Amino acid sequence: MSKKILVLAGDGIGTEIVAEAVKVLNVLQAEGAIDVSMQDGLVGGAAYDAAGDPLPEETLEAARASDAVLLGAVGGPKWEPLHISKRPEKGLLGLRSGLGLFANLRPAILYPQLADASTLKPEVVSGLDIMIVRELTGDIYFGQPRGVETLPSGERRGFNTMVYTESEVERICRVAFDIAMKRGKKVCSVDKANVLECTEMWREVAIQTARDYPEIALSHMYVDNAAMQLVRAPKQFDVMVTGNIFGDILSDCAAMLTGSIGMLPSASLNEKGQGMYEPIHGSAPDIAGKGVANPLATILSVAMMLRYSLDAAPAAERIEAAVSKVLDQGLRTADIMSSGMRQVGTAEMGDAVVAEL
Amino acid sequence: MSKKILVLAGDGIGTEIVAEAVKVLNVLQAEGAIDVSMQDGLVGGAAYDAAGDPLPEETLEAARASDAVLLGAVGGPKWEPLHISKRPEKGLLGLRSGLGLFANLRPAILYPQLADASTLKPEVVSGLDIMIVRELTGDIYFGQPRGVETLPSGERRGFNTMVYTESEVERICRVAFDIAMKRGKKVCSVDKANVLECTEMWREVAIQTARDYPEIALSHMYVDNAAMQLVRAPKQFDVMVTGNIFGDILSDCAAMLTGSIGMLPSASLNEKGQGMYEPIHGSAPDIAGKGVANPLATILSVAMMLRYSLDAAPAAERIEAAVSKVLDQGLRTADIMSSGMRQVGTAEMGDAVVAEL
Ligand SMILES: CC(C)[C@H](C(=O)O)[C@@H](O)C(=O)O
Ligand SMILES: CC(C)[C@H](C(=O)O)[C@@H](O)C(=O)O
Repeated sequence: MSKKILVLAGDGIGTEIVAEAVKVLNVLQAEGAIDVSMQDGLVGGAAYDAAGDPLPEETLEAARASDAVLLGAVGGPKWEPLHISKRPEKGLLGLRSGLGLFANLRPAILYPQLADASTLKPEVVSGLDIMIVRELTGDIYFGQPRGVETLPSGERRGFNTMVYTESEVERICRVAFDIAMKRGKKVCSVDKANVLECTEMWREVAIQTARDYPEIALSHMYVDNAAMQLVRAPKQFDVMVTGNIFGDILSDCAAMLTGSIGMLPSASLNEKGQGMYEPIHGSAPDIAGKGVANPLATILSVAMMLRYSLDAAPAAERIEAAVSKVLDQGLRTADIMSSGMRQVGTAEMGDAVVAEL
Repeated sequence: MSKKILVLAGDGIGTEIVAEAVKVLNVLQAEGAIDVSMQDGLVGGAAYDAAGDPLPEETLEAARASDAVLLGAVGGPKWEPLHISKRPEKGLLGLRSGLGLFANLRPAILYPQLADASTLKPEVVSGLDIMIVRELTGDIYFGQPRGVETLPSGERRGFNTMVYTESEVERICRVAFDIAMKRGKKVCSVDKANVLECTEMWREVAIQTARDYPEIALSHMYVDNAAMQLVRAPKQFDVMVTGNIFGDILSDCAAMLTGSIGMLPSASLNEKGQGMYEPIHGSAPDIAGKGVANPLATILSVAMMLRYSLDAAPAAERIEAAVSKVLDQGLRTADIMSSGMRQVGTAEMGDAVVAEL
């Protein structure tokens, strides 16, 4: 049966990078390796401009009816003056909560061909392969109460609520443990259990849940130490699992260890296996429309989509192998360019991957 | 008039490193460069063991009556099974809130003599000198309501509250701006204004407060991006100002960029100029009692104390110069040892600094 993909290009370089990922899907479709139907939709600033809403009801409905969503990127200075409720980011957050995409998988992988791009010494990061599992629909991102109130004194007071229930913690820990079982069987759960009761409970639930996974080596680390350890010795980690806000910070830190965030995909999954797939980088308004953006993170997001939501692991592997070959050939977009390599644009890079499929 | 210093060695290596810092104070006192009186007190696990409380009332009273507190480190596996309200960390948090120490200054400085210790490439970190100004008595650390409740379903729900008032944000921004005026006049305020209302207000107050500082170049960065930028290009920063929890994470990340956290001091100040001074590293229970810990971060904390609370900047400079000379001589404790250098113990390092004063 044909699987449905909703394509949301979004803002900035979104259109360009998504076009290359769609090329890859079309080729796989044409040769019968996958059976998908694609539909376009609006999200983010583009949706606000067209419909006054960063997440039109139509888009959310279409996403719900799809097996997978392919997202480019959202946001840009144009929409920063808008009220927080209308900003492009709300489109993204609305998709996450509207689809219940609680499990955000963010690999931080160093491609050997791009080892030089890292700001860290080669011996510290060579072979780096961390999977960060970030809870995505709870925590201070969605917790109530929240807002800004005026005190009797006339002074304002802003507040947000970090909150987790046991079942929310348990289900994200299970995702992390299941993934770790297919990898190095090591999970580091990150919290601030020495200060925050919410995360003290997180740690207790992580320990309880791990009883079902006797083969998993579970460790715990405070979030401040985790940020240190990522810089000091990142290869000590296999899978890391943490809440929404700590995951936001640590996954970006981990990604930057590779020096090539233009290469890193992500997946956000719900309990039904539906998923949203997007590069971890942003909409890069400064280079939008110039045809120079790196489409590889988006193309690799398609590989994650095929693996996690479309039951097409062999096609996913072909995409990943093709990307690796293109790097071996010395092709580089501007963001990962280094001396002796050949600089190419967005479309040329997409074509090269297609040629290697 | 003689100034009062409360000395709280705390746990683990605390006793050893504080002893070396006290040596330095004693020498300066003996030659008349400073006029201080010192008193010892209990905090952390040591206080729990002796008095059943990580912050005995007596200690807090003594701290209130002092001009400055010199703290070693608190915590250790021995006290981890204790309830969160009795853990050594509560001693530290109680001192911060009890004294109103809202301004935490955490320099991340790379000593040229120790450039090799960094896991980052030399060109990325050479000359690194960031001052992180972290708010220390507000945010989710102290926000109410907090706790773990049981829902009607029987499931538990943990929650904590991130909260700031305008005046709290304003006063920490002023500290950051004042410090930046004596440095590079650049301040980066870190928030998550695209998601959290509390930090959206933070950003507004930072902008308003900056109107009084026309010479300061104020920029804003989301916390996830700040974690990335610290890894990508840390030298872009001069002063960073942020809330308690983001500051906890980012200051540790920044410190680790230097590769030698055994070298980094910190100051925590209140509105009266009272301050608590401590190394940023922890109590290192694994090496406690062996005489191998690095006392330099604690000795440099004394320098910060002389500068910020005891009005003795010239003596502070002498300490800093002495530390630099000792490094020039090739003396290294185990944590910063590299080939060709001479490895020394805690006391020998303290003596060497004293000799260079
Ligand atoms: C754009 C923003 C709302 C989002 C987040 O904070 O989750 C982004 O930083 C991310 O990590 O996907
Ligand atoms: C020990 C802990 C409570 C403390 C904190 O989180 O503030 C520490 O990490 C620090 O940064 O001083």
